Amino acid sequence: MQNVLACVDNSRGAFVTQLKELLRIPSISTDPERAGDVRRAAQWMAAHFASMGLRAQIFDTPRHPLVYAEWLGAQGKPTVLFYGHFDVQPVDPIAEWKSDPFEPIERDGNLYGRGTSDDKGQMFTHVKAVESWFKAAGAPPVNVKFLIEGEEEIGSPNLPAWLEAHRDLLACDVIVISDTSQFGPGLPSVCTGLRGIAAFEIHVRTGSSDLHSGSFGGAVPNAIEVLTRIVAALHTPDGAVDVPGFYDDVQEPSASELASWAALPLTDEQFRETAGTLGLHGEPGRTTLERVWARPTLEIIGIGGGYQGEGHKGVVPARAFAKCSARLVPGMDPARVVECVRRRVMSLVPTGAEVEFKSGHGTPAVSIPTDSKWVAASARALETGFGRKPVFIREGGSISIVTRFVGQYGIPCLLLGFGQPDDRIHGPNEKLSLADFHSGVRTSAALLAELASA
Amino acid sequence: MQNVLACVDNSRGAFVTQLKELLRIPSISTDPERAGDVRRAAQWMAAHFASMGLRAQIFDTPRHPLVYAEWLGAQGKPTVLFYGHFDVQPVDPIAEWKSDPFEPIERDGNLYGRGTSDDKGQMFTHVKAVESWFKAAGAPPVNVKFLIEGEEEIGSPNLPAWLEAHRDLLACDVIVISDTSQFGPGLPSVCTGLRGIAAFEIHVRTGSSDLHSGSFGGAVPNAIEVLTRIVAALHTPDGAVDVPGFYDDVQEPSASELASWAALPLTDEQFRETAGTLGLHGEPGRTTLERVWARPTLEIIGIGGGYQGEGHKGVVPARAFAKCSARLVPGMDPARVVECVRRRVMSLVPTGAEVEFKSGHGTPAVSIPTDSKWVAASARALETGFGRKPVFIREGGSISIVTRFVGQYGIPCLLLGFGQPDDRIHGPNEKLSLADFHSGVRTSAALLAELASA
Repeated sequence: MQNVLACVDNSRGAFVTQLKELLRIPSISTDPERAGDVRRAAQWMAAHFASMGLRAQIFDTPRHPLVYAEWLGAQGKPTVLFYGHFDVQPVDPIAEWKSDPFEPIERDGNLYGRGTSDDKGQMFTHVKAVESWFKAAGAPPVNVKFLIEGEEEIGSPNLPAWLEAHRDLLACDVIVISDTSQFGPGLPSVCTGLRGIAAFEIHVRTGSSDLHSGSFGGAVPNAIEVLTRIVAALHTPDGAVDVPGFYDDVQEPSASELASWAALPLTDEQFRETAGTLGLHGEPGRTTLERVWARPTLEIIGIGGGYQGEGHKGVVPARAFAKCSARLVPGMDPARVVECVRRRVMSLVPTGAEVEFKSGHGTPAVSIPTDSKWVAASARALETGFGRKPVFIREGGSISIVTRFVGQYGIPCLLLGFGQPDDRIHGPNEKLSLADFHSGVRTSAALLAELASA
Repeated sequence: MQNVLACVDNSRGAFVTQLKELLRIPSISTDPERAGDVRRAAQWMAAHFASMGLRAQIFDTPRHPLVYAEWLGAQGKPTVLFYGHFDVQPVDPIAEWKSDPFEPIERDGNLYGRGTSDDKGQMFTHVKAVESWFKAAGAPPVNVKFLIEGEEEIGSPNLPAWLEAHRDLLACDVIVISDTSQFGPGLPSVCTGLRGIAAFEIHVRTGSSDLHSGSFGGAVPNAIEVLTRIVAALHTPDGAVDVPGFYDDVQEPSASELASWAALPLTDEQFRETAGTLGLHGEPGRTTLERVWARPTLEIIGIGGGYQGEGHKGVVPARAFAKCSARLVPGMDPARVVECVRRRVMSLVPTGAEVEFKSGHGTPAVSIPTDSKWVAASARALETGFGRKPVFIREGGSISIVTRFVGQYGIPCLLLGFGQPDDRIHGPNEKLSLADFHSGVRTSAALLAELASA
């Protein structure tokens, strides 16, 4: 293991040089004109895996190809599957880039370029860790699979069908994903939970068409007024969700988890500044991190009705709608939550109005037990890689592929983000700290050893 | 006077024939290609007035001309000004017309064609009444002015400046306008009030930009939630406006006015059916006609914020707005009402949110005292013209030119609508009852005599 880490340390420059080659391919998956570049990135990856001694294959999908590679020579040992992606986001607004997004450049200890952090750079840490094991120890201590796709930035439209059709290739003990970020600089992190989501819409109708507000105003129901009254009643004024049953199944984080969050170096004022909001607002009696990581929400994401153009139009609107989503935490069933909200909404409908409640997609939260052996292994690996014990964090958003891996296939997932919150993924001047990249390769190398004995 | 009415009765066919000539001119003011036709209608009107013995003049404005005509030979007698318009609405959807909109045709006692009711036909009643006085009595018993414009259907953009520049021509004792409708068939009506209006907007901001609802949702304020809470608090659940001071200056209608409204043949179910709403809703303890004629309202005419497109977007919106208008009744000052609402809105702004309150245009209500000598004269004239006593009604909307005549120039206005609520003005198959047209000419002829002794 020390030989492997030494090999990683000695190859630092070479790894960056190889990563730059991959970064120069403008594999923007959403841009039809870049489809050839996405394919070129797939070919580069497959060739790279093959050169390392893995059996690599390009799988075509209806749009962009994905790359699958494996080495299964560690008989009796666990199998780890690394998931990542080689496609990238567009580069607009290009004028705001200080250097060519596809000509990666080192500056102030960072590597700048599209895909450095999301996800070519992070994904490449695991590729180089496996290679280092081949070079320094002859072979990795565990069986290794790579599933690196080319459609992550367009929502992985063809991955679910591919997974269903290749369940055998998916077979593994644990999935490792590095496509998120650390809590902050010098704070290597294990992410132990993602919130789920349930979407729905409220459509109010009070009549067949908008009416003249002079001739009818004052004597007929107004769909917007009805809608605002319903929407306003979904929260208490102090910020709790006011829906009977909404919080019933919420699993509270453990006392030790809460204590570890409280110790994280983030003040409310820092969070507010990052958010760019005028203030903070949420469920009473909860800290900010609890609110975004461990508490469910009910957000009104959009509202519309009546006349929204310039100036004024004298109408009593007959229709109005609100689009909503609930972020879910472990324990909550999306269908049950939506049913609770539906019942509450319907109980608020006054006479003279009709409400159509439309349920949308729903995915449950993902929870990675902090006491699992995989988490323990990854924590030790992060300490080896970064030189300090990791913090345990969660993520307020959802990552649909993780929900699928965990929820549908029941495979434990380790979310080891090596990026930083200020990496500007999806924005101009995306970067990855070169130190984080190097620590990431070391972490992954150590993780293979840890998993072998986990 | 009996001679004049006999002349009106004997000229019935001739008047309709002349009206058809005017109706054949497609004077659609909003259509640039019809500008020549609008001018042609002005020329037709001016020539017609001149042939009757009035001094007629066409005044050009930046867009369409207007026609002014006068006969001031009744020394020492009151001066009456008739206001109307010779421009018409477009005819779309043309496929729904049963006959050519500009080839007027008599069917089932009605005259069908664009402008029959709005306003060529109604306006022409007064022209023919004055002519009948010239023919049967040598001259009208009062001084007579006509102001017939060509831009009413596009909002009279150039009339206010013309009025300011020709205050001398506007000098009169009373203005008579027939551009509305009776309460119903066989119910000749005097309109004694119009509601005013005050417009405003509420713009909520909670931060600099929309946020990811996963990463931030639950811990930051949501602009839509803030807005709906404010908007919902502007009414009590049972339908009253919940704004301190809002009703303070409202002048209640007289007991006799209320009693006359209660006697009008309109059930709530008929009103609801006309409105096409699922129910009726308004201020508690008030009848439907009180609600639309004599009570102020606060309508949310439009609302918008966040994501309104197809599907779902995971955002916490940073901005949301509502467009509102208050319909005002006699006694209410638009600026004071808006200030009351502004204060109420601002008192509802929670920490973490900013509200910009934008005041728009405002015009006060118009009230025509039911005990005025002009109203009494018009009531007697309607009884002569239609053979039954008129009902006293109000109008829930505003007519800006009336507000200007009454509010700015202090001239009493008589609103004598000869049309019917089902005349489909602005729609396909616009019509005017030939009986109503004839009764209208008789009413106007009688009105001139009544005004002479008023």
